[in-house]
Amino acid sequence: MSKEQFFYKLSDQAQGISRDLAPGLKTRIFPGDQAMLSIVTIAPNAEGQLHNHPEEQWGVMLEGSGVRTQGGEDVNVSVGDFWRTPANLPHRFKAGSKGALILDIFSPPREEYRKPGSGFSKD
Amino acid sequence: MSKEQFFYKLSDQAQGISRDLAPGLKTRIFPGDQAMLSIVTIAPNAEGQLHNHPEEQWGVMLEGSGVRTQGGEDVNVSVGDFWRTPANLPHRFKAGSKGALILDIFSPPREEYRKPGSGFSKD
Repeated sequence: MSKEQFFYKLSDQAQGISRDLAPGLKTRIFPGDQAMLSIVTIAPNAEGQLHNHPEEQWGVMLEGSGVRTQGGEDVNVSVGDFWRTPANLPHRFKAGSKGALILDIFSPPREEYRKPGSGFSKD
Repeated sequence: MSKEQFFYKLSDQAQGISRDLAPGLKTRIFPGDQAMLSIVTIAPNAEGQLHNHPEEQWGVMLEGSGVRTQGGEDVNVSVGDFWRTPANLPHRFKAGSKGALILDIFSPPREEYRKPGSGFSKD
């Protein structure tokens, strides 16, 4: 194994597989064998549409704030909050006035996210 | 679903399943169905022993710095760095002089970590 293989930086925009999820929502995808990380940058007040998928998801709020909607309820979240989204539970996120940086974790990996693309689901 | 079910805080020491990994290394475990999160607090200069397990692991450096050893190589890491540790790859971590806070992700969940205990492996 070459040194620093498997090592990355949250701030390095050149790393990961780029994906535009929605207007103002961009992510960089890091696929593993059992889990996949997604570093999502969200512009101020930008929001994604309600969607769901069979993979379990976890989210960790790294910067900013916003509203996480899942299971039909709205929860205000800010830096240091994290949450679990069980398989198939509809969810969305709307950033606050300063935007947001979120680490999302998918398990198993979302196969459609292994290549560059756009949108929240298969395309 | 009751409001805020599945929502947690990195800083809330009362949340999660407590585990003492080694002297100076404490974690709080959050099990999911497909992935498990582990919020590891490491005292200044504390270190764990080399170990491995069949679950894939990802680590995200939230605070502090240290040296990640995996695959026989030492890599200096600090806030904002993250890394993947494939299944069965021996690894360890040694914190720097200010300690460290690391988010570890296991997939699939480590069954032995679903209950309180101590150590890095089955007990």
